[in-house]
Amino acid sequence: MCELLAMSANIPTDIIFSFTGLAERGGVTGPHVDGWGITFYEGKGSRTFKDAAPSSRSQVARLIKSYPIKSEVVISHIRQASRGKVSLENTHPFTRELWGRYWTYAHNGQLTDYQQKFVTHRYQSVGETDSELAFCWLLESLVAKFGEREPADMRSVFQYIALLAAQIRELGIFNMILSDGRYLMSFCSNNLCYITRKAPFGKAKLIDTDVVIDFHQETTPNDIVTVVATRPLTDNEHWQRLQPGEWKLFCLGELICSGSTRELRPL
Amino acid sequence: MCELLAMSANIPTDIIFSFTGLAERGGVTGPHVDGWGITFYEGKGSRTFKDAAPSSRSQVARLIKSYPIKSEVVISHIRQASRGKVSLENTHPFTRELWGRYWTYAHNGQLTDYQQKFVTHRYQSVGETDSELAFCWLLESLVAKFGEREPADMRSVFQYIALLAAQIRELGIFNMILSDGRYLMSFCSNNLCYITRKAPFGKAKLIDTDVVIDFHQETTPNDIVTVVATRPLTDNEHWQRLQPGEWKLFCLGELICSGSTRELRPL
Repeated sequence: MCELLAMSANIPTDIIFSFTGLAERGGVTGPHVDGWGITFYEGKGSRTFKDAAPSSRSQVARLIKSYPIKSEVVISHIRQASRGKVSLENTHPFTRELWGRYWTYAHNGQLTDYQQKFVTHRYQSVGETDSELAFCWLLESLVAKFGEREPADMRSVFQYIALLAAQIRELGIFNMILSDGRYLMSFCSNNLCYITRKAPFGKAKLIDTDVVIDFHQETTPNDIVTVVATRPLTDNEHWQRLQPGEWKLFCLGELICSGSTRELRPL
Repeated sequence: MCELLAMSANIPTDIIFSFTGLAERGGVTGPHVDGWGITFYEGKGSRTFKDAAPSSRSQVARLIKSYPIKSEVVISHIRQASRGKVSLENTHPFTRELWGRYWTYAHNGQLTDYQQKFVTHRYQSVGETDSELAFCWLLESLVAKFGEREPADMRSVFQYIALLAAQIRELGIFNMILSDGRYLMSFCSNNLCYITRKAPFGKAKLIDTDVVIDFHQETTPNDIVTVVATRPLTDNEHWQRLQPGEWKLFCLGELICSGSTRELRPL
């Protein structure tokens, strides 16, 4: 399987602390050695650092652990290959442009019998993963539903994505993080949690390596930062677990919308 | 303006030597301080490193100058902003997926009165540059001409791109490098040159900084590597200049197709 990490913040914030913990799981405290990637949004722009090498040993990961890139939305993934060989084209996150924004996505889980469902034309897979194909199908479905221009009501877009995610979940395990650079959506199939940090800030201690941070020293009283992860990254804070079928939408660090698709039937 | 750098090779090759020369032009020997980017293809996968900081001082550029990423196709750009603010979303290269491949592009030059021509739906600009919009229009034109699936004859695709590029050139200066990960196309409006290195290899000396490489020590006799640049990067080798309206198509390091659009009328 894999592990996911995402961040939404109301002020450009670096993710060195959380990524340092996650990267350990790519070869030291976890088995996710088949590549990793991280996308930083800076305004409408985004940049993705990827490597097919394990995150615990990657030279590119070393840069990310030492060079603070300030971002309002981050999407990251460390991979343990299930479908598709270990290669750059199969490394998450995946990015496509829709409605004049870069959409970025990463998936944890595995799907079966998906080829027939995920027939796409406009957005085509480059690699061989079930994950990327599901992403292409999601975006293609958004165009089919909402057309060529971004709708005014973006909440309805994410509510529709939740319905689509629930359909995908019928094909297997589908934990997902997704962003257009403003909104961060997380959809839980079986394993996803989050924490929102705001004043008064305290200390946090990573589980996977011996690092402690005092957020009080690193923040201002107005900062609000949410971190989403497959498993908690710290052991002295309270992480909220998402329930199967549940989804949460964050913007500028805060939860703005949530729902459950447990009861949903296919569209 | 800006400067372009691209590589096509028949064996995965690093571009540290050439990029080291180019990066100096982003703040030391040249005025292109408004961001830079580089895309490496590794198989069908690609990864782009970008920074809005000058290439001569960027920490990310320092990684690229020291960490050999082996690639068969590279596209790079250092920017001196003409249209669009200094920001990540305006930083080249730009990438979009078409026909299940990542297409990557960078532009040197400036266009005027282009908004009316470049009306696109499927591929939309994220940033504000004339360059990105021209790229979106190119790709949208390819879909309009060839449909949703990659045609068998890719040369006809690049010949068509040359016709489109000639149209764009009527709006200003349009030096361009473009790749789908296999083919590297260069189109010259007024400033573009290239060199193909093959056995017997010799020494090369950068113009912009005091670095000499002995390719004989770094290569095998079968290696063929073409480097495309706005201006020659070395001063002891013979770089071929492209003529205005001329284009060249490289694959696996070798020139496979070329043509001139000087005589062309609009389609």
